[in-house]
Amino acid sequence: MSAEIICVGTELLLGDIVNTNVQFLAKELANLGIPHYYQTVVGDNPTRLREVITIASKRASILLFTGGLGPTPDDLTTETLAQCFNSPLIEKAEIIEDIQDKFKARGRQMNENNRKQALIPKGATILPNPTGTAPGIIWEPVPNVTIMTFPGVPSEMKQMWSETAVPHLKSQGWGKEIIFSRMLRFRGIGESSLATKVNRFFDLTNPTVAPYASLGEVRLRISAKTASETEAIKLIEPVAQDIIKIAGEDYFGQDDDTLTKVVGTLLRQKQQTVSVAESCTGGGLGAMFTEIAGSSDYFWGGVIAYDNRVKISLLEVSAEALDHHGAVSDIVAQQMALGIKKRLGTDWGVSITGIAGPGGGTDIKPVGLVYIGIADPEGNVESVECTFGDRSRDIIRYLSSCTALDQLRRKL
Amino acid sequence: MSAEIICVGTELLLGDIVNTNVQFLAKELANLGIPHYYQTVVGDNPTRLREVITIASKRASILLFTGGLGPTPDDLTTETLAQCFNSPLIEKAEIIEDIQDKFKARGRQMNENNRKQALIPKGATILPNPTGTAPGIIWEPVPNVTIMTFPGVPSEMKQMWSETAVPHLKSQGWGKEIIFSRMLRFRGIGESSLATKVNRFFDLTNPTVAPYASLGEVRLRISAKTASETEAIKLIEPVAQDIIKIAGEDYFGQDDDTLTKVVGTLLRQKQQTVSVAESCTGGGLGAMFTEIAGSSDYFWGGVIAYDNRVKISLLEVSAEALDHHGAVSDIVAQQMALGIKKRLGTDWGVSITGIAGPGGGTDIKPVGLVYIGIADPEGNVESVECTFGDRSRDIIRYLSSCTALDQLRRKL
Repeated sequence: MSAEIICVGTELLLGDIVNTNVQFLAKELANLGIPHYYQTVVGDNPTRLREVITIASKRASILLFTGGLGPTPDDLTTETLAQCFNSPLIEKAEIIEDIQDKFKARGRQMNENNRKQALIPKGATILPNPTGTAPGIIWEPVPNVTIMTFPGVPSEMKQMWSETAVPHLKSQGWGKEIIFSRMLRFRGIGESSLATKVNRFFDLTNPTVAPYASLGEVRLRISAKTASETEAIKLIEPVAQDIIKIAGEDYFGQDDDTLTKVVGTLLRQKQQTVSVAESCTGGGLGAMFTEIAGSSDYFWGGVIAYDNRVKISLLEVSAEALDHHGAVSDIVAQQMALGIKKRLGTDWGVSITGIAGPGGGTDIKPVGLVYIGIADPEGNVESVECTFGDRSRDIIRYLSSCTALDQLRRKL
Repeated sequence: MSAEIICVGTELLLGDIVNTNVQFLAKELANLGIPHYYQTVVGDNPTRLREVITIASKRASILLFTGGLGPTPDDLTTETLAQCFNSPLIEKAEIIEDIQDKFKARGRQMNENNRKQALIPKGATILPNPTGTAPGIIWEPVPNVTIMTFPGVPSEMKQMWSETAVPHLKSQGWGKEIIFSRMLRFRGIGESSLATKVNRFFDLTNPTVAPYASLGEVRLRISAKTASETEAIKLIEPVAQDIIKIAGEDYFGQDDDTLTKVVGTLLRQKQQTVSVAESCTGGGLGAMFTEIAGSSDYFWGGVIAYDNRVKISLLEVSAEALDHHGAVSDIVAQQMALGIKKRLGTDWGVSITGIAGPGGGTDIKPVGLVYIGIADPEGNVESVECTFGDRSRDIIRYLSSCTALDQLRRKL
């Protein structure tokens, strides 16, 4: 018993997009303990798709398809599957209704093209798509071959996978031995330095510990292979605690604890409020704070002071400081933080001013130089200088917002 | 005559890495005008790899392999190819020397394991690897089947491809015909509605027209297969112009024209400035404006008015409007837009206020209801109501910022 992933879409053959769907499904199959040995990409061509289906259905018992469920004529996955297994297509009224509702919710009229999305092979069941108009199917056209189809849109595919496909596979007996992982998240320390600190854990076999570096963050994944989540956690917990002790303040959370969440939780616990004054990030830090529903409990808002006139008029930054030290300086970062705290009357004020590049750098103030100011409830203000080096504008802006959050976290 | 890409590596089946190699090769094949219809990923397993090679060598005349050229026992691509076509492996002295030199340059001793990297099938020629220790091969084991192998390391693979593989393919007569594409980008119209409008173009054969939907945007790719870019553009241009005429204002740009870029260019042309007042997007719109280096020419900044107190104190939104109509209303959106325009003294003021969810929705004001206000240089203000439906918070916030940019674009 093994699975096989088949991705349908000429855009993949043209190299227009990276195939992240196949990586997601590959990981998920591994977590469920379902072996899979082949991945195939084929274009929107019925003859070739049929050939791929024929080959795969001989090799594997679970066939996962992504793509080709859209409303346009080149979306052919469902009808080609039906042809392959000589099954007629049936129009499902409930799908039509669902599509109509979604169009209505978006203030649009359903289009005739969408009707074809309501056609599924006789005997197949609907794999519901909560957000998009393209539902998938779960179908066993012949004994020991289960077919599941998903749209190519990653967000829709992932939701359909976790909400419907995974429970179905588990009901079939898969996932008995599960791989359960906990991701520990760190900031302010490099991958190699952390690796050296926790070196000895890398030799463990169950759970295993592996490092992952991502932008502005280092992670350690602790994975255990057991029959149940409870058993896995028993194995993982002591290791996690040891590592967290070793890492100290650089550890900020686990799994889906983002910096934003962690900072939000701390602010809510202390019943304190925060506002932001942003220059080079242009609103990115505020956008991060407000990613969290309910962030209005502690985040009041801020000022995007991209132009120096705004720094002066709304944040009371002194023209003198701007002239003598420049907009990218400790003193201006501090004045911005104090200015927004005072202007909005929040407990904390956080500011960012820097050179995101690619232009605007000098020998003394190179691209990637960023100052972060933090004004605390007592009215004290501190600033830190960050040098993110000669990286891309996006990355420097992103790291600036993350570092501002992390500085606030450490003070909280 | 077509090509096929085969990526070898268990790490791809486990989902440990995204397969960017296949996207690179797919793009390159398209540029050379070499059709390719299948991509296959298989693990480090000789039996399955052999099966894949057998299938592919019947379908395609050029087989490109990535991965499995390393020194470790699980690197099996070369020897499996040799077995498939019953060819002995020959040790190449020049490869041994090359590997020894590279180790010396890194101050290390060549490992015995590396000897296996010097074995290539009889009759194959070396595909040199300038930076790594794993060379590839170019081999025609049977008439009309050319095999090329590359290591999995992207940087090495790319260099070997462009320095040796491309010239070889061109010497075989490929690259005479290229595929050149132009992507037209649209907003404010759904994929199916646009498809209906431009239906007739989908039947064209050269250039071809194909639709792509992505979040908040629809794209049409026009691809021409010709001897030169100039000829391709000759074929593409008239079709593009027809489609642009049909789409009208919903067309906003092509290829890498983002909404942000297009709006920035228009503002710069008119030498006008803009500021933003953001509620539910919390700074996301400002962050979008400032993605562009040099946006300070036209973007001055704004106010993140997440809390109503900020709407009143900094944007002069009337408490009366907030009480009677609520923060999410046409009138408040308009007052915010006028307020920020006046406060910062910019030509345009753009505001966003809405319910990003998941909570906070009511029957009258559901999640996804967003008002966008635009104050123009004459001091007139208008607002539009958007219903983005019951989607995720991130998506609603993202679509809100995009729509605000698009509304400004239409007025510019």
